[in-house]
Amino acid sequence: MKKNISIIGASGYSGAELLSLLVHHPGVTVTHLFANSSAGKRVDELYPKFRSADVRHLRGVGHLIYEEYSLDKVLNDDLIFLALPSGEAMNYVPALFKAGKKIIDLGGDFRLQDTSLYQTYYKHEHQAASYLSKAVYGLPEWNIREIKTAQLIANPGCYVTSALLPILPLLKEKLIQPNDIIISSLSGVSGAGKKSSVDFSFTELNETVKAYKVGNHQHTPEIETVLSRFGGEPSTITFVPHLIPISRGIYSSMYVVPKQPLTNEQIEAVFKKYYSDAPFVRLLGNTPPEIAHVQHSNYIDIGWKVYERNNQLILHSVIDNLVKGAAGQAVQNMNIMFGFDETLSLI
Amino acid sequence: MKKNISIIGASGYSGAELLSLLVHHPGVTVTHLFANSSAGKRVDELYPKFRSADVRHLRGVGHLIYEEYSLDKVLNDDLIFLALPSGEAMNYVPALFKAGKKIIDLGGDFRLQDTSLYQTYYKHEHQAASYLSKAVYGLPEWNIREIKTAQLIANPGCYVTSALLPILPLLKEKLIQPNDIIISSLSGVSGAGKKSSVDFSFTELNETVKAYKVGNHQHTPEIETVLSRFGGEPSTITFVPHLIPISRGIYSSMYVVPKQPLTNEQIEAVFKKYYSDAPFVRLLGNTPPEIAHVQHSNYIDIGWKVYERNNQLILHSVIDNLVKGAAGQAVQNMNIMFGFDETLSLI
Amino acid sequence: MKKNISIIGASGYSGAELLSLLVHHPGVTVTHLFANSSAGKRVDELYPKFRSADVRHLRGVGHLIYEEYSLDKVLNDDLIFLALPSGEAMNYVPALFKAGKKIIDLGGDFRLQDTSLYQTYYKHEHQAASYLSKAVYGLPEWNIREIKTAQLIANPGCYVTSALLPILPLLKEKLIQPNDIIISSLSGVSGAGKKSSVDFSFTELNETVKAYKVGNHQHTPEIETVLSRFGGEPSTITFVPHLIPISRGIYSSMYVVPKQPLTNEQIEAVFKKYYSDAPFVRLLGNTPPEIAHVQHSNYIDIGWKVYERNNQLILHSVIDNLVKGAAGQAVQNMNIMFGFDETLSLI
Amino acid sequence: MKKNISIIGASGYSGAELLSLLVHHPGVTVTHLFANSSAGKRVDELYPKFRSADVRHLRGVGHLIYEEYSLDKVLNDDLIFLALPSGEAMNYVPALFKAGKKIIDLGGDFRLQDTSLYQTYYKHEHQAASYLSKAVYGLPEWNIREIKTAQLIANPGCYVTSALLPILPLLKEKLIQPNDIIISSLSGVSGAGKKSSVDFSFTELNETVKAYKVGNHQHTPEIETVLSRFGGEPSTITFVPHLIPISRGIYSSMYVVPKQPLTNEQIEAVFKKYYSDAPFVRLLGNTPPEIAHVQHSNYIDIGWKVYERNNQLILHSVIDNLVKGAAGQAVQNMNIMFGFDETLSLI
Repeated sequence: MKKNISIIGASGYSGAELLSLLVHHPGVTVTHLFANSSAGKRVDELYPKFRSADVRHLRGVGHLIYEEYSLDKVLNDDLIFLALPSGEAMNYVPALFKAGKKIIDLGGDFRLQDTSLYQTYYKHEHQAASYLSKAVYGLPEWNIREIKTAQLIANPGCYVTSALLPILPLLKEKLIQPNDIIISSLSGVSGAGKKSSVDFSFTELNETVKAYKVGNHQHTPEIETVLSRFGGEPSTITFVPHLIPISRGIYSSMYVVPKQPLTNEQIEAVFKKYYSDAPFVRLLGNTPPEIAHVQHSNYIDIGWKVYERNNQLILHSVIDNLVKGAAGQAVQNMNIMFGFDETLSLI
Repeated sequence: MKKNISIIGASGYSGAELLSLLVHHPGVTVTHLFANSSAGKRVDELYPKFRSADVRHLRGVGHLIYEEYSLDKVLNDDLIFLALPSGEAMNYVPALFKAGKKIIDLGGDFRLQDTSLYQTYYKHEHQAASYLSKAVYGLPEWNIREIKTAQLIANPGCYVTSALLPILPLLKEKLIQPNDIIISSLSGVSGAGKKSSVDFSFTELNETVKAYKVGNHQHTPEIETVLSRFGGEPSTITFVPHLIPISRGIYSSMYVVPKQPLTNEQIEAVFKKYYSDAPFVRLLGNTPPEIAHVQHSNYIDIGWKVYERNNQLILHSVIDNLVKGAAGQAVQNMNIMFGFDETLSLI
Repeated sequence: MKKNISIIGASGYSGAELLSLLVHHPGVTVTHLFANSSAGKRVDELYPKFRSADVRHLRGVGHLIYEEYSLDKVLNDDLIFLALPSGEAMNYVPALFKAGKKIIDLGGDFRLQDTSLYQTYYKHEHQAASYLSKAVYGLPEWNIREIKTAQLIANPGCYVTSALLPILPLLKEKLIQPNDIIISSLSGVSGAGKKSSVDFSFTELNETVKAYKVGNHQHTPEIETVLSRFGGEPSTITFVPHLIPISRGIYSSMYVVPKQPLTNEQIEAVFKKYYSDAPFVRLLGNTPPEIAHVQHSNYIDIGWKVYERNNQLILHSVIDNLVKGAAGQAVQNMNIMFGFDETLSLI
Repeated sequence: MKKNISIIGASGYSGAELLSLLVHHPGVTVTHLFANSSAGKRVDELYPKFRSADVRHLRGVGHLIYEEYSLDKVLNDDLIFLALPSGEAMNYVPALFKAGKKIIDLGGDFRLQDTSLYQTYYKHEHQAASYLSKAVYGLPEWNIREIKTAQLIANPGCYVTSALLPILPLLKEKLIQPNDIIISSLSGVSGAGKKSSVDFSFTELNETVKAYKVGNHQHTPEIETVLSRFGGEPSTITFVPHLIPISRGIYSSMYVVPKQPLTNEQIEAVFKKYYSDAPFVRLLGNTPPEIAHVQHSNYIDIGWKVYERNNQLILHSVIDNLVKGAAGQAVQNMNIMFGFDETLSLI
C-alpha cells in the first residue's frame, strides 16, 4: 500500500523540487500541499511546468491546490516534509511528533544540537529545544542505520552535504589535520530560495560573483559538528560561500593538510572503502568535477589531487543544491525510512 | 519482448538526449551507439552525467562504448535512430531500409520531397532521392495514422515543430490568410549542435542576441511545405531565427491575419478541437508561454491573443529544442510505431 | 563656463547611467543627486563601481551624497534630469518649468499629448496636462531644431527609439504600408529598472524567455503617435515585447510591407538620405545587427533585408536600453540644448 | 608630440581591449595593427563595436586594416605591444629590442626568469633566453621605478595580478606564513582567449563551473617567483583556477595564515601603507568585493577578514581580466614609461 505524504512549505523551490521527485514515485501518494501564502492557488499557477496537457483526466500534480495547514488534515499521513525558512519548522514539529508522524525537515532548525550555537548563527532563539535530541541527522552515507528507525530527520544543509562527503572519510581514517580545513564554495542562486529582492535580481547577479557571510555562514557550525561527530575528532573549518550566476548547483573546493604524505591511490582506496555501496557518490579521481554533470540529479561527484609540492590535498565536489542538497536527499531519507530501495524515483 | 534499437550519430546533443530518454524506457534495449569520431570511447567520457556510481553492477548507459558503424551490427535491431548533420543520413538510409529496419531520421534529409528545394536550402545534392517518397513526416499530432505503419520517419525540425502546431489548426479551418504569416523565432545555442567555433563560444554569445539566415534558413521550405500539405492551402511565410544566450529552448512569436474577426474563445475552441487528445500540447489562452516551463520536457505550450486594433492574431509557442524539437518527438514517433503508449518515458 | 545640472531619481539604473556619462563630461558639473529613498547615502554605497581609489583627493562622483529633493536646491542649476518611474515626473515639472529650468524627463509622463491615451496605457490620470503641449519630443535624428530651443524634453522610450529610427525614413518616403507594421522586440532585464520582485530574480529569468504585455505595452501608443507625426501618415502597429536573459540591450525585429517592390540598395539610399549626418546611427545593410556591438554605447545599428518571395521588408535594430534607450539619448539632447557637440562624452 | 605605437597580435581579445583603451588616449597614435591570420580585414569586420557611424570623415579605429607583420613597418614606432599566445612573443622580441623599440609583452614569455620552470609549465623550450634578464616585471604598484626606464616589460598574468596585490604587502611586512598560501580563483571565459573549441562553447559552459589545471597552471610559478622577489621571502602557494559562466572578470579568494594574531585594522593600515598612492587599488575592508564593480575598469578591489576562530586571514580581490589583468595594466605601464599620468585614458 502506498504511503501518504504531505509537504509543509510546498510553494518554495525545495517544495517544488520535492513534488517533481514524488509525482512519479511508485510508493507514495501526495495528499496535501501546504503553503499559507499561496493557499487556494493551483500548483501549476505557481509552477506552470507541472501543467497537464490532458483536459479530460488529469494526471500529475499540476491541478492540486495549495492549502492552509492544520494538524487534522495530516492525521492520515505517514510522513510530512517541512520545506520552510529557518525558524519556522520548530513551530510545527512538536505537534506532528506527538501525533506520531514521521517528519523530514529540510531546513536548519534541528541540525544543531547546541541551542546557543543555533542562536548565534540563526539570530533567533530555538522554540523547540526539547526535540533536538530526537532529531536524526539525515546523511544516508554516514547514518543509515539511525535513519531507518528515525521519526524526525534533520536533512543536511546544501553546502554541508557538499563538504561532508569528501572530507569525512579522510578525517575518520585520521589522514588529515582536523583543524586545517578550508572550504571555498560556490552556489547557484536558487540556493537563496524565492527572493523578492533587488540583490537577487537578474540585473544585479548576471556577469558577477561575490563572496558573502565570510566566516559566519550558518552552515559553518553544522559542518564542524558533523565532522567532529562522524569523523571522530573535534574539527574546525574556514568556510567561505560565493554566489555565482547559475541557477542550480554547488561547487566546493576544499584544501586540507595530510598528516603524512599520501598518494592519489591511497585517497581513492579510502573513498572506495566508504562509498562503494553508496548509490549517489561518484568518484572521479584526478578529474575535477563539473556542476553540469550533476544538475537535476541526486549525485555528488568527488575529485581529488594530492599536491605534494605544498603538502596539501585538494578536494572538489559538486551537487545540485535542490536535489542532493535538499529535496533529493530528503527523498533518499524517506526511501530508507519506509524500507524502499534507496534510489527509488531518484535514478 | 523489448525492442532493440541503435543510434547512429549518438555522440551529438540529440543523440545524448535520445539516450537520456531511452535509458529508462521500459520497452526498448539500446544495443549500439554509433559515433565514428568517438569510436572506442565510453559514453560517460563524453557525457559524464551518465556516469554510474555503482562500481560493482553497472546500471544505466554510461559504460557503453561508442562504435564505428557497420550494417551487420544492426541486423538484429528493430529500429535505428539517425542523429546526424544534414547530408549524412542519406548515406545510411537506403541500406537500412532494404534490410527492413524501421528508421527515424532526426535530421533534415528526408523532410523535403522536392530535391531542388533541398539543394537550394541545404547547399548540396540529394543522394537518395528515391527514398523521399517512402518517408513519413513524423509530426504525431497531424500524421499519427501514417506514422503507425511507417518504415522511415522524417522527424520534424525544431523551429518547424514550434511553428506548425500553433498555425496548422487555424489554417486548416481557413480562419487565417495563408500567405501572410510571420514567424519570429528565438533559439537556445544547443540548437546549433556541438560546435568548435569562435562564433559559438561563451564569450561571443553571452549577453547578446543576433538574427541569422534571415529569409533563407532551411526550415523555411519545410514549414511552408507542411503548412500547405496539412493545412490544405498553399502557404508562404516569413521566417527569421534569432540566437539567444540560453542553452535549450525555442520561443516562436507568430503574427497571422484573420480572414474575418475572431475572438480569443473561437481560437481556443479550434485548438481544443485539434489537440484535446494530444498529450504534449498545452493550451495557455492569453497567457504568453515561457521557455522554462517546457525545458527538459516534450511539451509544447501555446498562447494566443487576438489583436483587433490591427486586425492581427498573435501566437506564441515554446518547446525544448532537444526534446519536442528533436529527441523527444523521435521517441514519441517510436512509441507510436511500436504500439506503445505515446507518452512512454516522456512524461 | 560649465553648466550646472541635477538629477531627480538619481539612484535608479538610468540615473546611475547618466552619472557615468556626465562624470567626465567637460561641459557640466553635477550639483545634486536627488533620491528620496536613498537620501544620506553615498553614491558608491549603492553603486560601488563609482568608488575612487584615491584616499586623499577624491575625484569622480562616488563620494557624492543622495539628497531629498527641494526646489530651492536647484535654483542655480541650468538643467534638471528626471529619471523617475512613470507618474512621478509630472509632480516635479510644473514648478521646475515655472522656475525657468531646462528639463529632460527620461520617463513617459510627457511623451503622449493625448491624456486619455496616457490614462489607458499608464493606468493613472495625468496631473500636469497643461504642460504636455510645452514638451518637445527628444528624438534628435528627427527633431533637432525643436530640441535646440526646448525648455522641456520628453526623452523617448527605449523600445520606441529602437523602432522609430528604422521605420520612420521608409514611412516618410511613403515606401511602406503605414498600417501593416509588426515590431517584435527583445529586452534585457535592466529595462524593467531596479526590481524587488521574485519575477525578476535571477533564478526565474536565467535560461528562459517570455513575451509580456502582448498588445498593450505603454510604448505602443508612443510609437504610433510619433510614426504618424514624423512619418506623415496615420500609422498603427502590432508591438510585442519579450524579456530575455541579458542585462542590457534591445533587439527589435520589424516586419513591414513595401507598397511597391523595393531593392536593398533603395533602402540603403533612403537610410543614407536621413542618417548620413547622424553620428549615432550605423547602417549595416543585409548584415543583421548584434546587441553586443552597441552595449555601453549610444549607437543604434540598423540592418535590413528585402524578402521579395513574401513581399516583405525585414528590419532589425539594436540599442543599449540604458544608453541610446535612456541616459545616452538624454545626454545627446542636453548637448544639443546647450550648443555642445552632439557627441560630447558619448563617443 | 604623440607617441607612435603598434600592436602585434591585435585581433585577439587583449588586442581589441588595447585598442579600446588607446583610441581616445591623448598621447598616442596607433600606427599598425598586426594580425597575420586576419591580415587585410578591417578592424570593425572582426569587432563591429568599433564601427563609425560617420560616412564622410572616419573617426575611431574601425576602418583600420589588420596587416602582416614586418620589422620595417615599425621602425618609426616608439612602442610595440605584443598580445600573442604564449611561445610566440619570443620570436619577435630580439629584433625589436635590437632596433631600440620599447616593448610591452602581454603574454607569458618573459615573466619567468628560470627557463626550466618556463619549460615545465609552458610545455615548450624558450627561444630567447638571453632576453629574460632584460625584461622588467610590469606590476606598477611594486616596480614603478624599474618600469620608468625599462625597454622590455613583461606584463603580469591575470590571475597573478589578482593574487599578488593583496598578498604582497602582508608578506613584505612578515605578517603571514610564506608557505601556507591558498589561492582559489574564478575566471570569466574571455580569459581563455578566442577559442574554436566545443569545450568553450556556450552550451558547454553556461550554467556550470569546473576547476582546471589543478596544481599545474602556468601562473603558479609566476606567483611564487614574484611573491618571493618582492615579498622578500621564498614562498610557495597552492593555486586552483575555476572557469565560471561570465565573460569578464576574476575573483580570487585567498586563505593565508597570520604569524601572530592580527586585527582587521592592522591589515587596513598595512594596505594603506603600500597603496594609498596607487590609483587603481581600492580597499574595501570587511566588505567582500564583487566582479561587477570592476568590469571594464582598471581597478582591483580588495577585501579582507581576519578569522580568529581558525587562525586564518581571508583575502578577496576582483579585477577585469582583460583590463587590470591584461590591456589596462599594459597601458598603465606604457603611461609610466612615457612619463604620462599613470591613469591617462584609464579612469
